Amino acid sequence: MARGRFITLEGIEGAGKSTVAEELRARLRARRHAVCMTREPGGTPIAERIRQLVLERGSEVIAAEAEVLLMFAARRIHVDNLIRPALERGDWVLCDRYTDATRAYQGGGRGVSADLIESLADAVHADIQPDLTLLLDVPVEVGLARAAARRGTTDRFESESVAFFERVRARYLELARAEARIVRIDASQPLATVVAAVHEAVDARLPA
Amino acid sequence: MARGRFITLEGIEGAGKSTVAEELRARLRARRHAVCMTREPGGTPIAERIRQLVLERGSEVIAAEAEVLLMFAARRIHVDNLIRPALERGDWVLCDRYTDATRAYQGGGRGVSADLIESLADAVHADIQPDLTLLLDVPVEVGLARAAARRGTTDRFESESVAFFERVRARYLELARAEARIVRIDASQPLATVVAAVHEAVDARLPA
Repeated sequence: MARGRFITLEGIEGAGKSTVAEELRARLRARRHAVCMTREPGGTPIAERIRQLVLERGSEVIAAEAEVLLMFAARRIHVDNLIRPALERGDWVLCDRYTDATRAYQGGGRGVSADLIESLADAVHADIQPDLTLLLDVPVEVGLARAAARRGTTDRFESESVAFFERVRARYLELARAEARIVRIDASQPLATVVAAVHEAVDARLPA
Repeated sequence: MARGRFITLEGIEGAGKSTVAEELRARLRARRHAVCMTREPGGTPIAERIRQLVLERGSEVIAAEAEVLLMFAARRIHVDNLIRPALERGDWVLCDRYTDATRAYQGGGRGVSADLIESLADAVHADIQPDLTLLLDVPVEVGLARAAARRGTTDRFESESVAFFERVRARYLELARAEARIVRIDASQPLATVVAAVHEAVDARLPA
């Protein structure tokens, strides 16, 4: 059995990752792939409990460095218990956020050193890198307006400032310029156009 | 207000840390110190939730590296929300386990690289190091027999092999030889003798 492919979806709040992931799943299934859809932080029971700790807005201080450690701890648990076994049995794994999100949110957004993030990425998942990353890019005001329209309460990230999300987006765009693995898709276009661009990117990069 | 002092207690299961901590607290209070007693992993609500994740015996794999990241995430939250504020207001902090436990259990016991552990210690708490560490040292068979006598169920660490605890103890003893901060106390002696040795170490290292 050939190893499956690992596709990650990235972008700020309101970029449309969930909708695009559903469309992509349908497309991959039509191509006869077994598809495992998952998300970060989370994806397994313990990793989802870590997600809750990180996202909820409580009274305790969680420093940016603690946030990074929790993200990578959840990631390692996710990789060991779900992502690697799925890839090994030949599934295609579609993951909503992965290490690029840590680079963008904790690195770009909160100023955690790239050295710390990259040394943890090496220690945690040297063998599990995405085959393709789709960066759904929208201007911050578009993303935040979409996200605000659909939600009730805000979590620790959603309640951040516009300036924070500008730093996150800027880091995502830097990563996309630096890494051939990352395809930037203009997600401010109509949904059908975005989905078509996603399918085109997947067909070009990961042919059947 | 002068900064308080930070004392950590280390040792394998059944070394008698809890009993000794109570005796030491009483002694420090008699010396008119405000004393904050706490433990790791844990010590704050979020850090205690991380403790639960790490200790419970579930069906998910938690790799040694994930365990290290969870320990240091909990530690940073503990330092920021409890230990540093307590020291700054002049309290003496008495903590049941700290980074030496990560060195001994995850480093010695599980073989995680010292480089990863020391780089995380620097990133997480460069400014908060113990003034004194009391290593309550007992032979593994003595500690495990004591621990077995008092408990109902076993957690992920308590269910480890004798060989694991031998590696943990050996690493603790190495650390004690290398670091003047760490005082080894023979905790296989009668309790009154152990407590007297602890008081003597505290009086000698941290005079009134």
